[in-house]
Amino acid sequence: MPVRDRLLREFLAAIEKKEQQQLIELVEDNQPYDIAQILLIINAAQRKELFQHLPNWLLADLIQELDHEDQQLIISEISAKKTAQILTEMSSDDAADLVGELDDEKRQELLALLDDEEAIELRELLQYPENSAGGLMTTEFVVIPKAYTACEAIDKLRELAPDAETVYYLYVVDEEEKLIGVLSLRDLIVAGPETIIAEIMYERVVSVPTDMDQEEVARVMEKYDFLAVPVVDMSMKLVGIVTIDDAMDVIKDEVSEDIAKFGGIGGKEAGVQDLNIGAFDAAKKRIPWLALLLLIGIMSGNIIAQFEETLDQVIILAVFIPMIADMAGNTGTQSLAVVVRGLATGEFIGKDALRLIKREAGVGVIIGTVNGLLISVLVALWQQNIWLGFVIGFSLWVTLFFATLAGTIVPLLMDRLKIDPAIASGPFITTINDILGLTIYFTVATRFMEYLI
Amino acid sequence: MPVRDRLLREFLAAIEKKEQQQLIELVEDNQPYDIAQILLIINAAQRKELFQHLPNWLLADLIQELDHEDQQLIISEISAKKTAQILTEMSSDDAADLVGELDDEKRQELLALLDDEEAIELRELLQYPENSAGGLMTTEFVVIPKAYTACEAIDKLRELAPDAETVYYLYVVDEEEKLIGVLSLRDLIVAGPETIIAEIMYERVVSVPTDMDQEEVARVMEKYDFLAVPVVDMSMKLVGIVTIDDAMDVIKDEVSEDIAKFGGIGGKEAGVQDLNIGAFDAAKKRIPWLALLLLIGIMSGNIIAQFEETLDQVIILAVFIPMIADMAGNTGTQSLAVVVRGLATGEFIGKDALRLIKREAGVGVIIGTVNGLLISVLVALWQQNIWLGFVIGFSLWVTLFFATLAGTIVPLLMDRLKIDPAIASGPFITTINDILGLTIYFTVATRFMEYLI
Repeated sequence: MPVRDRLLREFLAAIEKKEQQQLIELVEDNQPYDIAQILLIINAAQRKELFQHLPNWLLADLIQELDHEDQQLIISEISAKKTAQILTEMSSDDAADLVGELDDEKRQELLALLDDEEAIELRELLQYPENSAGGLMTTEFVVIPKAYTACEAIDKLRELAPDAETVYYLYVVDEEEKLIGVLSLRDLIVAGPETIIAEIMYERVVSVPTDMDQEEVARVMEKYDFLAVPVVDMSMKLVGIVTIDDAMDVIKDEVSEDIAKFGGIGGKEAGVQDLNIGAFDAAKKRIPWLALLLLIGIMSGNIIAQFEETLDQVIILAVFIPMIADMAGNTGTQSLAVVVRGLATGEFIGKDALRLIKREAGVGVIIGTVNGLLISVLVALWQQNIWLGFVIGFSLWVTLFFATLAGTIVPLLMDRLKIDPAIASGPFITTINDILGLTIYFTVATRFMEYLI
Repeated sequence: MPVRDRLLREFLAAIEKKEQQQLIELVEDNQPYDIAQILLIINAAQRKELFQHLPNWLLADLIQELDHEDQQLIISEISAKKTAQILTEMSSDDAADLVGELDDEKRQELLALLDDEEAIELRELLQYPENSAGGLMTTEFVVIPKAYTACEAIDKLRELAPDAETVYYLYVVDEEEKLIGVLSLRDLIVAGPETIIAEIMYERVVSVPTDMDQEEVARVMEKYDFLAVPVVDMSMKLVGIVTIDDAMDVIKDEVSEDIAKFGGIGGKEAGVQDLNIGAFDAAKKRIPWLALLLLIGIMSGNIIAQFEETLDQVIILAVFIPMIADMAGNTGTQSLAVVVRGLATGEFIGKDALRLIKREAGVGVIIGTVNGLLISVLVALWQQNIWLGFVIGFSLWVTLFFATLAGTIVPLLMDRLKIDPAIASGPFITTINDILGLTIYFTVATRFMEYLI
C-alpha cells in the first residue's frame, strides 16, 4: 500500500512539527476512510497531538469511518467533554450508534454534556432496535416548503450546507409534518429557477416505517435505486432518512453473516475473521456448535449400532457408509442453498413454498436416478457383485430423494417459524440427512441381506 | 401486494381505453421498477399497445429495470427500429449490457440502425470484460471546465439535464482529457455562485482502472461512501463512471453467488432459485457436482476397504465412522467460512495468511482437545469400554487438528492460485476431510487393536 505509506509519513512529519495548518490540509485533501486508518496505526501520544490540532467537525468525520470497537478505543483516550463536542458534529445515526455501544454510566455522562435538544434526539434514536429502519436512520434531512421556488430552495440549501449524504433528496411535509412530496437535487437543478416546488415534487413517495428490518430497507433502496429513503412513524410523520452508505453496509454485512452462518461460526457478531482474535476466543465461539454436532453424530452412530448384526454379516457394507452419508448431506446442502438464496434475494414469497417443494421433489427423483444408476454400475464392477450394486444404488436413490426434500422443507419451516434459515446451515442439514441416509441404507441392506451374503 | 394490484388495474384500464396521456402519467408518477414488473404481467397484445403509446425515453427507463432474460423477451416482441430508438435513450452501460446479450446477427442489425457515434460507443463498451470496471461503467458523465464559476456550472447542468444517477459528481479534465479534479453536486450548491470551480474541486481524485474487477470496484465505493467512481484508461484519461446502483447490484449478486457456491449449485449463472426453472434443468445444474462428489465418496469407501480386516475384528468401529467423518467436515467448513468471509470482506491480505494458519492451528488444538475429551468419556460410558473411548477420542483430536488446518490452507491456496475459494465449498472440504479423518481413525484403531478386541 504505497499510497497509504506515503500518507502516513506526511502525517507523522506534520504531527511531529505540530504544524496545525498542514495537518488540517492533509485531512481535508484525503479520503476520511484513509485518514481514519492512519488514526489506528499511530500511537496514543501521536493521536493526542492530532486531536488537539484538528477541529471537532473533522474529527467527527474521521471517527464516523471507524468500526464500533475502534471508536471505543479512540474515545477512551479523550475527555468526555471533547467526546461530547465531537458527537455534536457527527451524523445523528453515527452518534447514536457510538453512544449506544457505551456502558450506561459513560452514556449518561455524555448525554448530560450535550445540548438538551441533541440529548433528546439521541435518546429517541437509541430507543429504536439496532437492526430497524429507526436504528439505521439519521435525523438530518432537508425539508422545504412546497410554495418555494427552485431558486429559493437552492438558496436555502446553500445556507443549511447539509452533509453530502443527506442532501440528494429534499422532502416536503404538510403542517402536521406528514410527508407529502419528495424531489431530488437533480430535479431541483434541472428545473427553471422560478419553478414552484409543488409543481415538480413527486407525490407518490415511497417511505419505510421505523420498525422495518434493516435488510428489508436495504432491499427497497436497492430495488428502486434510491440514494436515501424517508422513514415515517405510525402517523406518517417524517422522522428520518436512511442513506445509501448505510444500506450498502447492511448488504455487505449480510454477505459476511450468511457465509458465517453457513459455516456454523455464528452470524451476528462480527469479527470471527478478525485476525486479532486469539485462538482461544475463536475456538470458544465454534465449540458449542461442534459439541452439539458431536452429540448428533453419536445419534448417526446409534443407527449403525442398531444394524450391527447386518454389518457383521456383510462387512463390505461399512465401505459405503461415508458415501451414503456424504451424498445425503451434499444434496441437502444444495437444496438448502437454493432456498436460502431465494429467501435472501427476496425472490420467494410464502405461497411459492409448495411450488418449490414440488420442484425439488422432482429434482430429487432425477438426481437420485442418475446417481443411483451410476453407483450401481460402479459398485457391481468394483466389487464384482451385482446384488451389492443394486442395494447401494437403490439406497442412494431413496436417500437422495428424501435428502433433497429435507434440504428444502427444513429451511422453509424455519423461515415460517421466524428462525433464520441460514442457521439451518450446511452442518445441520448434513447431520439430519446422515441419519436419514444411514437408516434407509441399512434398512434396504437388511431387507436384501440374503442376496449379499 | 395491494399497491401493485391497484396499479395493475389502473394500467389495464388505461391500455384498454388507449388513453395515452393517462398512461404516460401513470408511468411518470410511479417507480420505474414497479411499472417494469407490470410490463411482465400483462400479455403481449397489451404490451404492444403500451409500446405504441409511451415515448421512447420512458420505455428506456422501464426496460433498464428488467433482468437480462426479461429484456430479451420484451425486445423480441418489438421491431429492430423501435429497439434502436429505445437503446438511444438508455444509459450506455445498460444499452451495452442489453446488446451484449443478443446473438451476433441481431446485434449487428441493431448497431447498424444506430447513429455512428452511438454505435462506436457501444462497440467500445462491449470490448470490456463483463465483470470489470469497464464493463460496469456508463459513459454518461458530466465534465466541466475548471475556469467555470459555480453559477455557470449549474446553468450547464440545467442545460444538459443529465440522468439522476450520473449527476452527483462533476469531473474536471485537462486538455488531454486526463482527470484532474472532482466535486460533488453538494459542493457546487453550497459554494457561492461566483466561486471558481478550480478553487473548490478536490484534486486527489480516487479513480479505478477499466480492468479492475467489479467486486473490487464495489468495495472501493463502499469503503469511501462514493455515489459514483470515475474509471480511467491506462493514460489516466477519464472514460466512464460506475454509479452506486450498479455497485449495489454487484454486492447483492455476490451474496447470492457465495451462498450458491457454498451449496455447490454453481455460482455465476443466476436463476437456480428461479421457480420457473423446471426440475429437469435444476437437476442438470447440480448433477455434475454430485457425480464428482460421488466418485470422491468412493475414495473414502476405499479407505475403509483398506482397513476391512480391522473392522471385521472390531465391528463396533463402524458405529463411529459417520461421527468422525462429519466432525472433520464440520470443523473444516468452519475454518473455510472464516477464510472466505475474511477474503470476501477484504479484511485479509496475502501476508496475513501465515498468521491465520497459526491461529487456526491453535483453534484446531483447542477444539480437538475439548471434543476429544468429551467423546472419550461418552463412548467409554456408552460402550462400557475405556480403550474404545480412548481410541475414538484420540482419533477425533488428531482429526480435528488436521481438518481445521485443511479448511484454512485449501481456500488460501485456491485464492493464491486465483481460484475462487468459495468454490472450495462445504461439500469439497467435507470430502477431503472425510478421507483425512477416516485414515487417521483407522490407523489409530489398528495401532491399538490389541486393546479393543
